[in-house]
Amino acid sequence: MAASDPTGGRPVDPSRGALRPLGLAEARITAGFWADRQRVISEGSLDHARAWMDKVGWTANFTIGAATGPAEHRGREFADSEVYKLIEAMSWETGRRADPARVREIDELVALIGGAQEADGYLNTAFGRPSQQPRWSDLRWGHELYCAGHLMQAAVANTRVHGPGPLLDIARKVADHICATFGEDGSSGVCGHPEIEPALVELYRVTGERRYLDQAALFVERRGHGSLPPHQFGASYFSDDIPVREATVLRGHAVRALYLACGVVDVAVETGDDELLEAVAAQFDRTWARRTYLTGGMGSRHMDEAFSDDFVLPSDRAYSESCASVAAVMLAWRLLLATGEARYADVIERVLYNVVATAIEDDGRAFFYAHSLHQRTPTRALPDDEEQLGFGGGPRAPWFEVSCCLPNVSRLLAALSTYLAVADDEGLRIMQYANATVDTRLADGRRVALETTTAYPVDGDVTIRITATDGGEWPLTLRIPAWAEGATVDGVTRAAGEAVTVRRAFAPGDEVRLHLPMTPRFTTPDPRIDAVRGCVAVERGPVVYCAESPVAEPLGDLDQLRIDPARAPADHEDGVEVWGGLAAETDAAWPYEGTAVADPPLGLVRLLPYHRWARRGPATMRVWLPTVQSPRARSTDG
Amino acid sequence: MAASDPTGGRPVDPSRGALRPLGLAEARITAGFWADRQRVISEGSLDHARAWMDKVGWTANFTIGAATGPAEHRGREFADSEVYKLIEAMSWETGRRADPARVREIDELVALIGGAQEADGYLNTAFGRPSQQPRWSDLRWGHELYCAGHLMQAAVANTRVHGPGPLLDIARKVADHICATFGEDGSSGVCGHPEIEPALVELYRVTGERRYLDQAALFVERRGHGSLPPHQFGASYFSDDIPVREATVLRGHAVRALYLACGVVDVAVETGDDELLEAVAAQFDRTWARRTYLTGGMGSRHMDEAFSDDFVLPSDRAYSESCASVAAVMLAWRLLLATGEARYADVIERVLYNVVATAIEDDGRAFFYAHSLHQRTPTRALPDDEEQLGFGGGPRAPWFEVSCCLPNVSRLLAALSTYLAVADDEGLRIMQYANATVDTRLADGRRVALETTTAYPVDGDVTIRITATDGGEWPLTLRIPAWAEGATVDGVTRAAGEAVTVRRAFAPGDEVRLHLPMTPRFTTPDPRIDAVRGCVAVERGPVVYCAESPVAEPLGDLDQLRIDPARAPADHEDGVEVWGGLAAETDAAWPYEGTAVADPPLGLVRLLPYHRWARRGPATMRVWLPTVQSPRARSTDG
Repeated sequence: MAASDPTGGRPVDPSRGALRPLGLAEARITAGFWADRQRVISEGSLDHARAWMDKVGWTANFTIGAATGPAEHRGREFADSEVYKLIEAMSWETGRRADPARVREIDELVALIGGAQEADGYLNTAFGRPSQQPRWSDLRWGHELYCAGHLMQAAVANTRVHGPGPLLDIARKVADHICATFGEDGSSGVCGHPEIEPALVELYRVTGERRYLDQAALFVERRGHGSLPPHQFGASYFSDDIPVREATVLRGHAVRALYLACGVVDVAVETGDDELLEAVAAQFDRTWARRTYLTGGMGSRHMDEAFSDDFVLPSDRAYSESCASVAAVMLAWRLLLATGEARYADVIERVLYNVVATAIEDDGRAFFYAHSLHQRTPTRALPDDEEQLGFGGGPRAPWFEVSCCLPNVSRLLAALSTYLAVADDEGLRIMQYANATVDTRLADGRRVALETTTAYPVDGDVTIRITATDGGEWPLTLRIPAWAEGATVDGVTRAAGEAVTVRRAFAPGDEVRLHLPMTPRFTTPDPRIDAVRGCVAVERGPVVYCAESPVAEPLGDLDQLRIDPARAPADHEDGVEVWGGLAAETDAAWPYEGTAVADPPLGLVRLLPYHRWARRGPATMRVWLPTVQSPRARSTDG
Repeated sequence: MAASDPTGGRPVDPSRGALRPLGLAEARITAGFWADRQRVISEGSLDHARAWMDKVGWTANFTIGAATGPAEHRGREFADSEVYKLIEAMSWETGRRADPARVREIDELVALIGGAQEADGYLNTAFGRPSQQPRWSDLRWGHELYCAGHLMQAAVANTRVHGPGPLLDIARKVADHICATFGEDGSSGVCGHPEIEPALVELYRVTGERRYLDQAALFVERRGHGSLPPHQFGASYFSDDIPVREATVLRGHAVRALYLACGVVDVAVETGDDELLEAVAAQFDRTWARRTYLTGGMGSRHMDEAFSDDFVLPSDRAYSESCASVAAVMLAWRLLLATGEARYADVIERVLYNVVATAIEDDGRAFFYAHSLHQRTPTRALPDDEEQLGFGGGPRAPWFEVSCCLPNVSRLLAALSTYLAVADDEGLRIMQYANATVDTRLADGRRVALETTTAYPVDGDVTIRITATDGGEWPLTLRIPAWAEGATVDGVTRAAGEAVTVRRAFAPGDEVRLHLPMTPRFTTPDPRIDAVRGCVAVERGPVVYCAESPVAEPLGDLDQLRIDPARAPADHEDGVEVWGGLAAETDAAWPYEGTAVADPPLGLVRLLPYHRWARRGPATMRVWLPTVQSPRARSTDG
């Protein structure tokens, strides 16, 4: 068995692929935007989540195996998985930053969990005991394999960071039990909520147990044949409608579809199944092209937390679950590593700055489950001590009956530094721009270290300074985002979307300077997206902007806002400004009478980054801004 | 106790109000559009619904009281109510048209139901027996009072048509039991699904038992104080968030809100509470102005079958449940009778022609639960013998797990003739135009009879011929719909929305000729309805039109359709034609790149009435048609 990963551990560790990921010890975020977000998790969210899980009984569920255990399971059937996700987050966090008290907390939780494991390896606090449903009796809704998957992911993270320990033993026993139960000769079922698939591959990567990979491959191939019992939401909800190899787009429950796709990439990579890899990449590409919000958010429907048909992307009833954004990053990262195509890093950047960064309150103690792009009625203050039953509308809530999102975003952010750079066959590629240090070895064993300094995304100047190298020539590749028209590398203009390689015998102190032009720009949607026809959005660099009611003074009802798309948006010290105004209200007894509404007088309207919305008290908000009927360009001094 | 109603019975029979409704024996539909729809129910739906209710065990549930009864209740907790709604429909149907076999069928069902009633009057097959939940233990979801309400409505209908009988006895025992249980000194609860409120008032109207009215008033006043346990959908789902007198708009579950509002009108009318009447009228008016689809459909959200915020009216995820349209007609009818304002008859006309008429297949054996205004992917054929679990997407389905809509639409259509005309203090008012006969007595006792002949809504000529009169002068009032610009009465132009009164000493053979101009017209939405910005719809008379994929030849993907709003729509023998074309597809890897799409070459595009969609095999469809960027008027011979 492997000791702790010498790289410090990385969330995904494929044995092959175009690119090699770095570990927590090799890439560190030192300051700036993402350091702030990591601090929010570190100082706020982890303790907040733990306290709530204690309060609502999800941790106590694990005492069910002991004589003094509670008679009743508390929380939803997947409550175990939240504790596992929290342990995963804490594991990455303690790899990122030494914290002996947190390590002790993990150990205590692991001991608690171990006490609930049964002799044959089965571990789930909601099933199998007297007065509970039998084990595996409800594959559609029971989430047993899903919970087991998150346990394995926690064990994988903990092992990579701290080396093998009791949690890995627990996870292996669970995995062995699952292989015995669901193997070639066992039950032919799949789980209603995918997650076991990537988890088993990752556990294979840590342990070398080929059976785990084979079991994951079996689960992938079994999916899509309608084996789960019928449900109102249809087999597509479970991605059980079409075999994985035949599907052309992600569909159904967004998180389910994205987790499954992660497992499919993992299986394809480890088994060398390029056809399978191409199938899932094509599904993701079409999903990105037709079923994704401007923010990178995924999931259009509240009822089934699902993708809808192509181009059904309503702003006000956007679902765009925080967990779907985590899953989208996981999937795009896997595709980036497997294919080497830098456009998947563009995906990650968009999702990070516009959903992940939006999800959590600045004190780490409240979060969005769903991410509306249009808040019509003012958000209302929520009590600190009340669990929310629904997910719609802002503001961020301290806790939800289903609180997957906070530990899920936490596990991503704690390991975020590993998404910044990757190694290729010869050199290093920078994928995300943040204040960071990288210290790793190239494929040929030479050490290279560098430091990145930037105020990104506030401005677009990025300096990469070599801090150590064993000498000799090697290539440093910089990703130019697809939006970055006019970018320069060392003063030379480069094409948007290009991967620019600087090949040099770098010496310590050498610098490469990237400039990404952070000019605010209007964005117009595909005309097939009915929900935002006749609107524009404003972006600046990777950041989507929005109008928020108290910010966009003196504006009141944002549904009356009209923007002149002929006058370019401009930077302002507190955001971005556009020309717009409020149209007159024309209340009619019947809203289809076609009363003409004159364009309003125009003035400057302040916009702020979408990830900053709902942080200053009750607010209405919209990302997509209806345009005036008669746009008129005007000189900038007008 | 009253014998059968000499008017033949009417669905709502208020003791006061601006207008007096006619009964089934006083107003008859003789031919044409609505006669066809009535035949569909009469010859298809009633037997179809009965057969399915037998097949899925909903009728057999009532044998639960007998020794040989089934151990298990089948269907949802509100299955009893569907049998009651079917009996109500059959009762009106047997009043409309003598049918001894159907009367025997009703009697047999009533005997079955009576066998399930307990000694103290309680009657519900899903609660209160060993292995079932206790009575009244789940007011939020149990639907016990709701089911009791539909039983009462069935008894009221049956009594009005056929005179008092066993069903009325059953209903009175139920009502007495409810008054004892939920009266001033009893449980203070309300039902999660309103319906008991209007039912108790109607039962009061039939029996004269004041206690029933008082109990209904008590239920109305108790609502809105958050007495039902918290739920993910919020208290608004149950209209339990705001007291009835303080609310300003309908909200939450659409059918719940509309049924409650019907009960509120009934209570207000019978108790003379004008303040309460004004409150509910204002709520409906605002709902009509801001939360209603062009079709008159209500309910924007699938998740909670609910109204959304103002102006959230997505076409593709429209809910617009058939039952909500029935409830909207019920409510508008009550408001019309109470206030005398003819605009409520405009509401009824819109809902009837565009939702009610759309709901049921031409053979009566399949129906829509939800009414999308935009079908993006082709409808798929459904098997005849399969119960559907979900409600989204077409085509009409033979049966749903929740099959309230078919009996609900049936009970409305069977009694539809009573919505055509009303009596006022002096004369008669025609509210809906159909081939019909009316034979009634004026307020002063004089007999008047007339016959209406028309091809409406195909054309707008309506001839009203007096067939009998006791002589003397009396006023005949005709409603000019709000859309009918250029209408004439006896050749004289009258204002749209006007109530035109012809006061004359009519003689048999006298005619009044109404002409409503049936010119197809474009309709543009309030700019706050984001979902349809940049689109127009086409209406002709009261009928909303749509583009359907195989009809709108040679069009394929309707999401590429662009219409020129500067060229007027025109009649065609098979529908209406507009100028439009298909824009080129511009598939991009990311749908927010703002690729300019040129206006397509334009040709004639065929539209058909929305109520005719999905009747010719798999289809895509859209009501709201995106416009070209540069509209260009053109001579009609162009």
